[in-house]
Amino acid sequence: MDFNEAIQAMAKDARESARFLRVAKRAEKDAALAFMAERILAKKEEIIKINAKDVTLAREKGLNPAMIDRLTLDEKTIKSMIDGLHEVAALPDPVGEVTGMWKRPNGLQVGQVRVPLGVIGFIYESRPNVTVDAAALCLKSGNAVLLKGGSEAMHSNLILNEIISEALKNANLPEKSIQVIPYKEHEAVGILLGMDEYVDIIIPRGGEGLISFVVENSRIPVLKHFKGVCHVYVDEFADLEMARKICLNAKVQRPGVCNAMETMLVHKNVASSFLPPMIEEFIRAGVEIRACENTLRLIPNLIRAKDSDWPAEYLDLILAVKIVDDMNEAIDHIERYGSNHTETIVTNDYKKSQEFLERVDASVVLVNASTRFNDGFELGLGAEIGINTSKLHAYGPMGLKELTTTKFIVYGSGQVRT
Amino acid sequence: MDFNEAIQAMAKDARESARFLRVAKRAEKDAALAFMAERILAKKEEIIKINAKDVTLAREKGLNPAMIDRLTLDEKTIKSMIDGLHEVAALPDPVGEVTGMWKRPNGLQVGQVRVPLGVIGFIYESRPNVTVDAAALCLKSGNAVLLKGGSEAMHSNLILNEIISEALKNANLPEKSIQVIPYKEHEAVGILLGMDEYVDIIIPRGGEGLISFVVENSRIPVLKHFKGVCHVYVDEFADLEMARKICLNAKVQRPGVCNAMETMLVHKNVASSFLPPMIEEFIRAGVEIRACENTLRLIPNLIRAKDSDWPAEYLDLILAVKIVDDMNEAIDHIERYGSNHTETIVTNDYKKSQEFLERVDASVVLVNASTRFNDGFELGLGAEIGINTSKLHAYGPMGLKELTTTKFIVYGSGQVRT
Repeated sequence: MDFNEAIQAMAKDARESARFLRVAKRAEKDAALAFMAERILAKKEEIIKINAKDVTLAREKGLNPAMIDRLTLDEKTIKSMIDGLHEVAALPDPVGEVTGMWKRPNGLQVGQVRVPLGVIGFIYESRPNVTVDAAALCLKSGNAVLLKGGSEAMHSNLILNEIISEALKNANLPEKSIQVIPYKEHEAVGILLGMDEYVDIIIPRGGEGLISFVVENSRIPVLKHFKGVCHVYVDEFADLEMARKICLNAKVQRPGVCNAMETMLVHKNVASSFLPPMIEEFIRAGVEIRACENTLRLIPNLIRAKDSDWPAEYLDLILAVKIVDDMNEAIDHIERYGSNHTETIVTNDYKKSQEFLERVDASVVLVNASTRFNDGFELGLGAEIGINTSKLHAYGPMGLKELTTTKFIVYGSGQVRT
Repeated sequence: MDFNEAIQAMAKDARESARFLRVAKRAEKDAALAFMAERILAKKEEIIKINAKDVTLAREKGLNPAMIDRLTLDEKTIKSMIDGLHEVAALPDPVGEVTGMWKRPNGLQVGQVRVPLGVIGFIYESRPNVTVDAAALCLKSGNAVLLKGGSEAMHSNLILNEIISEALKNANLPEKSIQVIPYKEHEAVGILLGMDEYVDIIIPRGGEGLISFVVENSRIPVLKHFKGVCHVYVDEFADLEMARKICLNAKVQRPGVCNAMETMLVHKNVASSFLPPMIEEFIRAGVEIRACENTLRLIPNLIRAKDSDWPAEYLDLILAVKIVDDMNEAIDHIERYGSNHTETIVTNDYKKSQEFLERVDASVVLVNASTRFNDGFELGLGAEIGINTSKLHAYGPMGLKELTTTKFIVYGSGQVRT
């Protein structure tokens, strides 16, 4: 098998399909999404049976229970896939929106209109439901997509791709608009990353290892999400009861996700009243505390934080705690150890809240709310394809709009340059 | 000299300066720009004297007259530099603009606000006036910048950098906000392209060779402008007198630039009335014609176009001419050979004008106007740092707004996720 040739042929087909998707009507795209939902429901038993093959193979290979869990499709995950398709169909079409239009002194009417990016390469790990989610978002935004999922999910992804193709055909859209790359071999990823003639953008979703590999090897621009080292800064003028609720939520509501708090920063003037009950509550919730020197002075018998704790993304019930002299020290700490993801201040001081919002460089900066709100759905984008922690194109959660760009359209009446 | 260490130190200083620029007030930035203008005027004689060193060295090296011309600073180019600084100062500050704000069902108020990108690496060829233009645009948009100009312009760039630093200091802005990389060696570019820890974005400006080198070697996202293979399609329903003026302007007004027309596509139904006088006019204007078979049948004695003519960016008084059966053939030709830069249709047919605007994939698509209008000033952006022909972040001419991104700001009152 010559992977290079095979993937190039897929990429060419995607590029050709993108020409049709660019001008596809919303009704056609929504019809395809509805067909997908209908066919997934009708073929539920078959999907679950085929997915069981992947799960058995994964068990034999000794994958850990969390990975097996993410890989498994059951009634519930299939229902959520179907709901997702209907939700995306219900969202407005971003393509064709005129974001602005103005007249020039010479009479030229100049506007900017939203258009699809073209061909997206989406690279992700084991969850097969991502295949359907990503396909839906790319299609709705008028983009063709090449999907390179985890090799453990191959059988599941291929049956889903079959259903997707059928739905595209039914809606008179090009079948090759959405294609799962059917090779398990790791080199397939490298080949996809070199297809800059056909692919406009790469979106990787997965662990730090995957993201780094993609960034190192891609000739195509990458929208990447590195890591979430998120802080809550409890200011001296915080409502301490509010701070308690926000910190608890930010750490324990779902510790394994990127927008969970990893370090709590506390102003020295409230440390002695806020920290002892807060830390007791964390310990009761099963959180392991890594404390700075000053915190240890207040509450002995905690684990002493090492240098490696401040930049750590634990994704677990572990929390670093540091007492700071003032907001400047908190912001300096965030500038040094944060990952441009999500940062919260809890304060009732007006000036400080405004200053924190302005000075902190993160994709989402919040006042008096949990870090857990950095999420496309929670912020009102209607959907989410990922969170971009680099600043180009989109900074923060990306929805349908972020899968488009704008081109200039100009209405003239014979104008020439002089 | 350890270039790596030296450039890393500069990049670190730029990153540190970016923290201050992020929150710099418009008045401070405009004051610095005004100081620059004032000091350049005061030191005019000195600048011209130092620039003469570069010009002498370039002549000794045997650089061609066009390059010598671009390298030379005189009263006129210095005046245009000074005017440029005042123009940028007069433009509104893009930083801080709230592009949208909405309320979520739980009471969270979510907004998006324009913020600088951070640190920009700007890589360009011989014109020393670009040093001042790029510095002004980056500063106004709140970004720190590392400038790597052509080695032939080194003395000129360094004296300009001295003046710029003085102006920054005078306006109480960090002196290291704008730094010329003082190494002529080519490896300095490669080192800059690896500074992804400190530099957020690379903007190269120059020939295809430079752009390709940057894209191949950068670990940092690149806003790139490849080439301009621009077409004018003269439709069967065109006003032929308007078409004549537009085509002439698009080809001959300034043939050496990226938004000049390189291929003219003509509908077969108007070919016999439009082409003979048009081609005669082109020939009188010194344009060499490369004609398709059908054009040759109409007008013999022209040079026959080769396959290599259709994707060519001549940047010269040369024009490829092709007769097409209909608009579909014109659009297919543009899809195949165009460079996503600028495409024009001349027509009075309403439906065709709308269809051309929708179907053609280029950063600027025009109806009844010259391709030469793809330019930040002409389209009303107020300034231009370059034209992006890839789709990420900005598609088409980039002004101050395109040197920013948006972050989410969230005003809460104690909200947590459930």
